[in-house]
Amino acid sequence: MEAVERDSRRKPSRLLEGYLMATLFYEPSTRTRLSFECAMRRLGGEVLTTENAREFSSAAKGETLEDTIRTVEGYSDIIVLRHFESGSARRAAETANIPVINAGDGPGQHPTQALLDVYTIKREIGTLDGIKLALVGDLANGRTVRSLAYLIAKYQNTKIYFVSPDVVKMKDDIKDYLDSQGVEWEESSDLLEVASKCDVIYQTRIQKERFGERIDLYEAARGKYIVDKKVLDVLPKHGIIMHPLPRLDEIKKEVDGDPRAAYFRQAKNGLYIRMALLKLLLVGH
Amino acid sequence: MEAVERDSRRKPSRLLEGYLMATLFYEPSTRTRLSFECAMRRLGGEVLTTENAREFSSAAKGETLEDTIRTVEGYSDIIVLRHFESGSARRAAETANIPVINAGDGPGQHPTQALLDVYTIKREIGTLDGIKLALVGDLANGRTVRSLAYLIAKYQNTKIYFVSPDVVKMKDDIKDYLDSQGVEWEESSDLLEVASKCDVIYQTRIQKERFGERIDLYEAARGKYIVDKKVLDVLPKHGIIMHPLPRLDEIKKEVDGDPRAAYFRQAKNGLYIRMALLKLLLVGH
Amino acid sequence: MEAVERDSRRKPSRLLEGYLMATLFYEPSTRTRLSFECAMRRLGGEVLTTENAREFSSAAKGETLEDTIRTVEGYSDIIVLRHFESGSARRAAETANIPVINAGDGPGQHPTQALLDVYTIKREIGTLDGIKLALVGDLANGRTVRSLAYLIAKYQNTKIYFVSPDVVKMKDDIKDYLDSQGVEWEESSDLLEVASKCDVIYQTRIQKERFGERIDLYEAARGKYIVDKKVLDVLPKHGIIMHPLPRLDEIKKEVDGDPRAAYFRQAKNGLYIRMALLKLLLVGH
Repeated sequence: MEAVERDSRRKPSRLLEGYLMATLFYEPSTRTRLSFECAMRRLGGEVLTTENAREFSSAAKGETLEDTIRTVEGYSDIIVLRHFESGSARRAAETANIPVINAGDGPGQHPTQALLDVYTIKREIGTLDGIKLALVGDLANGRTVRSLAYLIAKYQNTKIYFVSPDVVKMKDDIKDYLDSQGVEWEESSDLLEVASKCDVIYQTRIQKERFGERIDLYEAARGKYIVDKKVLDVLPKHGIIMHPLPRLDEIKKEVDGDPRAAYFRQAKNGLYIRMALLKLLLVGH
Repeated sequence: MEAVERDSRRKPSRLLEGYLMATLFYEPSTRTRLSFECAMRRLGGEVLTTENAREFSSAAKGETLEDTIRTVEGYSDIIVLRHFESGSARRAAETANIPVINAGDGPGQHPTQALLDVYTIKREIGTLDGIKLALVGDLANGRTVRSLAYLIAKYQNTKIYFVSPDVVKMKDDIKDYLDSQGVEWEESSDLLEVASKCDVIYQTRIQKERFGERIDLYEAARGKYIVDKKVLDVLPKHGIIMHPLPRLDEIKKEVDGDPRAAYFRQAKNGLYIRMALLKLLLVGH
Repeated sequence: MEAVERDSRRKPSRLLEGYLMATLFYEPSTRTRLSFECAMRRLGGEVLTTENAREFSSAAKGETLEDTIRTVEGYSDIIVLRHFESGSARRAAETANIPVINAGDGPGQHPTQALLDVYTIKREIGTLDGIKLALVGDLANGRTVRSLAYLIAKYQNTKIYFVSPDVVKMKDDIKDYLDSQGVEWEESSDLLEVASKCDVIYQTRIQKERFGERIDLYEAARGKYIVDKKVLDVLPKHGIIMHPLPRLDEIKKEVDGDPRAAYFRQAKNGLYIRMALLKLLLVGH
């Protein structure tokens, strides 16, 4: 990984010259799409863009994902799929004779995000073993924090703090999984107290769309746990603030200038993770 | 052609390095657009994408196609145009000083589809002379089958069967043309009987949007002629099933695994046809 | 500049190989986007396209432009920004550690258009000093003519004629500025009389959307000053007709064939200006 990151500064690479990546996005995610397309081009590869793959099905008024994949695999060497349906990436991968990367399948997985999160912690803190991590914000709906909790369980002596409004607490399946793996976890409503003990504060956005017409509940939830100067004041010097982005005001702008604000470095790490993944899947090492 | 197909596996080509193709799509057709963009990139050329060229006219609230073409030809070496108006490709070609490829102009023509269909038959069956071809489904509105019937007439001793619901029968202009060229044709309502005698079954989708509010007529028409195992059972061993895609259920999934199911190979042939065309138009041989 | 234009014909250039330009368009402008993307590719650089950057904010329901810029700068070497808000380009440039080019920020500036206009006059007439220029059409809302008047003031002994319907006259700020710079200007309602004395007729489109429900006022305004054969008859032989495009019928088609119709050459000059700018900003000379 570090080799990939270093290499990306020596340009231009021709490692993937002649390879063609198709981005097949059934829902918009400009951030993720640009990250993949940049990764491919930094390695010398080419990109076929589909910003709105729903055209496929709208034109056909019902073409199956499988048929679309069989067509697109004729035009490319690797497919990056973003879809609104859980399980769609697996179906695509089972159909295709070329690699398919899951760039998010609805409420399902978003594995490259989880990889870049782990890579960011490794890079910023130096290790994952023994870290203390606070997951903050919408823990019920955030696919990011669920995947991260899952991955963290693979390391030794970690501790996870869940800090969230009551309406969006971490669900039992993850808690049970952590228990089964012997991972220590704790719920807390005191962000400052938690921050003073943590290596990583992983903040997330409260998603308005989950609250329907109960704007009052949303407003209460979103204002509850904000990362601001006060959090920085108690956070250990070596600690970091992470966020999958986009953010609204759950991290105040006053935090941006602090060297421990790692979220834009984290976004950039997405590029390196995706470069490493494309390299691995296309040239095998 | 076969040389182009072979070459596309030896990558990367630099044949069209430095050439720029603009895709100007006034209506979405991701399948066709990706096929052209892939073709250009497989030959080392670059692409300027316009997924929604209607922006041009919406911005201008009335800029003529001719003015748009005059602007875009300043930015590219070849234009691929998809437009909703019959005759638009000809108008564009008359305006431009660079080549314009018609990628479908409304109910008019879609010549690269017709070329890839003929190429597929040649490649799969070995010859076009003497073939027996069934055109099935929506023969009234399908621009594909009309163009194919027209092209087939240029070969010797062919026979065409029309198999379609009464509401979407092949129109007289094509029948008259076939008569004038001495091409044998026949209408039939018995798909199985026809399939047992044919080299090629060319199935097409019944287009719901043509039926307006008469969903009942649509449902009756779409269910009438389905390619399934029973068709495979009677189709000669050397025969093939073709379809311009996308398909709904007018070809059952159970057919996909049969080696005679040629429709995804057919889609891939679109790539080779478009590579050959770009090569011919840009470097002249 | 002329060197860039000459070079663009010798292809392929590899000057910007390995550089990545992100086009971040918050409102559609296919013409401007294609021009920048073509410029980048003609110099051997790569492009990340965002046809609809509003996705960024819609996904986030409120991500700031600054956050988006911080993310995109991680994926590219230069950003071309089109935004609906005046001042947004400056905010983006203050945020980014890479160059940001303003490709139009709402009612604010569109500096590359102004540059290409000046370059066109220089190239067609040979000089800007001493030219007589008529600005025609919508002078109240047209950002192009305002910027051009401003730039022209930097040259010696120029004279500007304003020819526009009363409802869309040039505003006082520009007139005051011209006065302060000692630039001669004059309002006229006689296009033919002005045309007979001018080196450059710069026609612009009357923008329907500015008139709201008063279609009658719009219709009166748009028909008032049309560039047609009669204008050509009195325009000096060395004179030129310019237009930022798109045009409706404020320049009649009968004018297109005249060698003094410079508007499509002007559009093409946009390519050279943008190539020069990308070269300057990325490799510094």
